Parts: sequence; structure tokens; C-alpha cells
Amino acid sequence: MDIRFSDRANGLKASAIRELLKLTEMPEVISFAGGLPAPELFPVERIKEIFSEVMDRDGRAALQYGPTEGYRPLREIIATQRMSTAHMKLTGDDVIVTTGSQQGLEFSAKLFLNKGDVVICESPSYLGAINAFQAYEPKFVEVSMDEHGMIMSELENALKENPNAKMIYTIPDFQNPTGKTMPDDRRKRMAELAAEYKIPIIEDNPYGELIFEGTVHPAIKSFDKEGWVVFLGTFSKTFAPGLRLGWICASPEILSKYVIIKQGADLQSSSLDQRIAATFMQKYDLNEHIEKIKEIYGNRRTLMLECMDKYFPADVKHTNPYGGLFAWVELREDLDAGKIMEECIKENVAYVPGDAFFPNGGHKNFFRVNYSCMPEDKIVEGIKRLAKVLAKYY
Amino acid sequence: MDIRFSDRANGLKASAIRELLKLTEMPEVISFAGGLPAPELFPVERIKEIFSEVMDRDGRAALQYGPTEGYRPLREIIATQRMSTAHMKLTGDDVIVTTGSQQGLEFSAKLFLNKGDVVICESPSYLGAINAFQAYEPKFVEVSMDEHGMIMSELENALKENPNAKMIYTIPDFQNPTGKTMPDDRRKRMAELAAEYKIPIIEDNPYGELIFEGTVHPAIKSFDKEGWVVFLGTFSKTFAPGLRLGWICASPEILSKYVIIKQGADLQSSSLDQRIAATFMQKYDLNEHIEKIKEIYGNRRTLMLECMDKYFPADVKHTNPYGGLFAWVELREDLDAGKIMEECIKENVAYVPGDAFFPNGGHKNFFRVNYSCMPEDKIVEGIKRLAKVLAKYY
Repeated sequence: MDIRFSDRANGLKASAIRELLKLTEMPEVISFAGGLPAPELFPVERIKEIFSEVMDRDGRAALQYGPTEGYRPLREIIATQRMSTAHMKLTGDDVIVTTGSQQGLEFSAKLFLNKGDVVICESPSYLGAINAFQAYEPKFVEVSMDEHGMIMSELENALKENPNAKMIYTIPDFQNPTGKTMPDDRRKRMAELAAEYKIPIIEDNPYGELIFEGTVHPAIKSFDKEGWVVFLGTFSKTFAPGLRLGWICASPEILSKYVIIKQGADLQSSSLDQRIAATFMQKYDLNEHIEKIKEIYGNRRTLMLECMDKYFPADVKHTNPYGGLFAWVELREDLDAGKIMEECIKENVAYVPGDAFFPNGGHKNFFRVNYSCMPEDKIVEGIKRLAKVLAKYY
Repeated sequence: MDIRFSDRANGLKASAIRELLKLTEMPEVISFAGGLPAPELFPVERIKEIFSEVMDRDGRAALQYGPTEGYRPLREIIATQRMSTAHMKLTGDDVIVTTGSQQGLEFSAKLFLNKGDVVICESPSYLGAINAFQAYEPKFVEVSMDEHGMIMSELENALKENPNAKMIYTIPDFQNPTGKTMPDDRRKRMAELAAEYKIPIIEDNPYGELIFEGTVHPAIKSFDKEGWVVFLGTFSKTFAPGLRLGWICASPEILSKYVIIKQGADLQSSSLDQRIAATFMQKYDLNEHIEKIKEIYGNRRTLMLECMDKYFPADVKHTNPYGGLFAWVELREDLDAGKIMEECIKENVAYVPGDAFFPNGGHKNFFRVNYSCMPEDKIVEGIKRLAKVLAKYY
């Protein structure tokens, strides 16, 4: 059969990583490869209770079609509870609900990118965003990071050199994959640059509330005076990813376009799941639940970093995240984390090789480790196994 | 602000119809405009019971990330229960779950269409599909219908005249908006034409199981020997639209591309909602539930057609659907259903003006009426109100 796919679809390939990750699903493998929240923290009993309430109160509406923008009470709660944590004063009108924040990423590419347009992003950046954007056939310009995230002078150079840049994509808090976080002055500067160069920023913020030390950083959008910043949030890491609930905050002009795109994409997100989330947050304090998550993830983070320091060869570097789910490991420049991964699988331990996070390739000497969904004894054992493999190369 | 959107986004406009339909939401309006299933038929109590079972059995998995392809037991049930009704023998491997069948439409455009490519569709066709496709900037070639749906000789002419046609889009059963249904010989012929001209058919089938007289027609895909037909199904009309669950059946080569597209679009559909649907269908007979829906919709259909015959001016024509949710009304050629709608709103009755269903415009003398979600007394009263307005023009 000679099927004539679209050009963009011809470019889509089953990710090599995805195939690799299937190997990590065997029960004997200690996998630091995933990005899953810890399921033992899901509030199962409370959700059961909430569900009964939802069905008794408005069960028929929960099963019927609803507005594309989302369930109104959920939009209000996102604005007043979640976005105020990110130092913003918004109303439900400033928010629409999406089917996870992955959908917000896909919509952003659809909204802003013609074929060949430039996306400016951190180097490295989130694999899932790169994949979603790639379907719209852009070029990626990667901006270097230091320990505090994207370097603003380098961003400004990229903006000057790429007048056809159409959006800046950034994860300012506990970035995926590096775990790095931008300090407040950089956030302010980035918002200024967006206004100066008249370019939208897609601020992807799935991890900001999972801060182990200190309080939640102000969103880049909180420094945005003209409406250039689009903020993407999600309940996947703070509540439950299986419900597929995220959100977009943007200026009215931009948000109304997202609504039309969403109408064509899936009409709306689940009426039922939106009501479960809204009712949960009306009845219980999500911040209290997030405190529990932070305590456990923070401990796992501390343990993993300590173990890497203790067991890894001395020359292996890693980031020191103070929130989120991931740390980023740098090997000696001549080493290939993808090839080493094959040996790791034999030792029943896994990570994600770093090169897939660089949209233009290269940089084979990095890997990403996740600490959120693995009990402490397995973190110790897994890092020891990794160390054993790495020792052969040092 | 001078925001540089993508070309496709510049073409997106808030639908005029959508604004009009907001007027129809006032409680005093009898609206035949929507396409909603009757909420009084939703199995609320059974879903409550099922939810408790799901949460007790695997609550953590129901709240966690799951596979992009969908929850395996649901894929199996779709293959063995729903697709066998459409005369097909499939397994779960042939099916992926989508966030409603609207998502299947959007993905199809993304998978097959470059800017300027031709989509061949019925004239008229489903508004939501036209909108989803339009974001990929195709051209539409409309093929005439008779009372039995798309005319196959006209389809063949369109295929000959448009070598850059990339897909055929069709709703063979109780078409939206006309309510027309293709007989089996046309389905077979359409499958043959797809193979001969090497072009995919997107078979959109939300209403096929809601047949009031006779048994479910074989899907076009059941006549497909080489794998040119993509079948889109949904639980929105037979179970509950609020759960946003649809599916795609296609050959392995095509289906694997849809999976990659879905991964970028929303990672997966709701883990919870998929488990609710699967467990419901393991425990209860969905066919039994569909029988109840058919009985009520069938009665409403009969009543609405009778009322139109009785009260409408004699020259007004309508289709005679034997399933689904919609009938299609044809006015005298010089009349404009959009303008007449303004008067209808004043009389507190509403329909959808037909011109939006023609992707290339024109055809102002049609409108669509829905009979599924309105009790019988309101159908009588609403058709009387419509008749009163129409009488002024005849």
C-alpha cells in the first residue's frame, strides 16, 4: 500500500526511547526513566466520596456534553487557588481547561507555528513538547542554560538572530529534564524581552508547586504587562494524571483562539473528571495534599542526590533540584548514555538517555533520572546498580 | 498588540452559529438546534455502582497515567462488542481509544492533509468535522447526495477530477445533518473506489447503532480488503458524551501513526473514564441500554416527522431518517434559513441554519432539527411555533 500521509506525518516516527522504555516495565527493573507521580499518594478514598457527591448532585450533567472552555466552577478554582499560588490575580474568565497540559503544548504549536517558523527553547527541553511541536515542522533554536536555567543574554541574542521566531518555550520551575529553576529576576527579564520582541512565551509549569524549600516562585506571567505570556498548568503532578486535566491562562485575544482550537480538537475535556477535581478542591485543601507529596518527594530527592554523590564515580556531575521530579546527570563528554543504557538494562536499572531532549540532537553524555515514584530502598539499590555500570567507564 | 499567529489560526473565527446557539439556551426556547443525547437516559445509578467497583479494584491505576493506545480491556470490548455489531471481526490491537470521536476527526486531518490538499465529503457534511479539517487548510470537494446518501458515480467523478484528493470523509449512517443512510451496495462500492483510487476513507459513525427499524448496517470498513478505511466510533450517543470516549479502527500501518499523533496531542484519554466504560460493558449489556434509547428516540422521530407533515406549509420538504438524531428540512430556494432563524428566536424556537454544513458555502434554504433531547409535548409545541414562522413565507 502506498498511503499518501501528510508531510508532517511522514516525519513522525515511533520514538526509539519509547521502545526502550518498554523494556524498563519489567518488574525486576528499577526504573528512574518514567515521570510518574507516586500512586500511593493519590487520594483514592476522598475521590470515592467526592464521586458519590457529584453523581447525587448533578450526575446527568456530569455525563452530558459541557462547554468547551471547561466546567465553570473548576475554572474559578484554578484562577483563585492555583494561579494565586503563582502570584497572579485572575478570574475564571482567564482560564480554560485542557485534556492535560500536553494538550496546551499541542495547541500552542497549532496556534503560533507555520512550517519553518522558529521555536526558541531551553537546551535541553521537554521531550513531549518537542514531539508535539515537531508535527508543525518548526525549526528549534536552543538557548544555553546555566545552573539557574535559560541565560537571558543568550535568549536576547537568539531573538535578534531569529526575526521569524514565533514563540519562546520554557519550563521555569524544576525543568524537565534538568530540574533547574529560574530565579525571579530572570523571569521578570524574560517577560520584558517577550514584550520588547513581541513574541509569545509558552510558560509550561507542571512542577512549580512541588517546591521542597521555600515558597512557589512567581510565574513569568505574573511579570507580563501586555499579555505575551501563555501559562500552562496541570493537575497531573499535584492531584491525579489519570483524570487528564490541565489548563491554559492567556490574554482574552489569545485565549479565544485556544477555545476554537479546542472545539475542533476534542470539543471539551471530561465533564465527569472536571467535576471530580472541582468538588475535591471545594471540599478539601489541595495545598495540604501537596504538602504531603512534597515531603515524600523531597526525601526521595535528598536520598537520590546523596546516593549519587556516594556511589557514582567522582567525575559524574548532577544537578541539585529543590523541587519537581527530575535530576540531570552529566557524564564525561566522550561517553554515550544511550549505549550505556543497554548495559544498565542488563543490570535491571534504567534512566532516559539525554539526547532526545535536545531538539537538534547531539549531547549524548547526559541522562535524566526521576525520583518521585520509587520507594527509598529501591532508590539506593538502583543508584548502586547504575554506579556499578558507570564505574566501568571511569 | 500585534500577535503573529499561524496562518491556520488567522483563519479560525468564532463560529457565528455558536453565538446564535447561545441565544437558544434560554429556558423559554424550545431548541431543536443542539445534538445532545437525552440525559434522562444516562445510566446514572449503574455508573455510581461501577465507579465504586473500579476504585476498589484498581483505584490507583485509574488515577495514574496509562498507555496512549487506551486501556486494554476497553480496546478489547470495543473490538468484540461494538465493532462486531458493525459486521467486523477485530481484536483490541485494531483499536485505539480517543478523547471523543471529534479527536479522531482532528487526527485524521493532521495525518493526511497538507495545505491545499482536497477532502472529498458529502454535501452537506458535519460542521464539527469541517471545522476540525479547516485548521489544516484543505480544499473541500462536495459530492451530491440523493435520498440514499453520497452518489457513487459523482464520487468517482470527484476522484477522477482531483488527483490531489487525500481523503474521503463520510458519515454513512443517519448522517449529520441530513439523517440520510447509505445502503449496503453503496458502502461496498465506496470501499472499492477507495482501493482503486488509493485514497483513505474516514468513516465517521456516531449514530449507526441507533437504528430504529432493522439491524445495524455493515460498516464501509467491513468491505475494506486492503486497509483503506479508517473507522471512527464513539460512546457519546450510546453511553455518555461527558466521558469523552471514542475510538479509531484502522490498519496497523495507519493506526501506529494515530498513536504517535495522540501521544503529542494529549498523551492518553482519561484512565478513570476508560475504566468506567469498560467495567460497565463487562457487567451490563450495552445493547440492552441502546434498545431503550432507540425506543424513545424513535418515538420522538416519528412524532416530529408527523408534526412537520401536519403543521408545516405543504411545500416544505424534510428527510425521513430511520435512526440517529437529526432530520433535515428544505425550504423554497429563495428563502434564507439564517434570516428566518432570527424570527424563530423571537417565537422561542430554534434550529441550526443549514449553510454552515456546506464547506464551500451557499445553500441557505436548509435547516437541521434534532429530535433526541426534547420531550414529546415540546416537540409538538416547537414544531407548531416553527410552522407559524414559516407560514409567513409561503
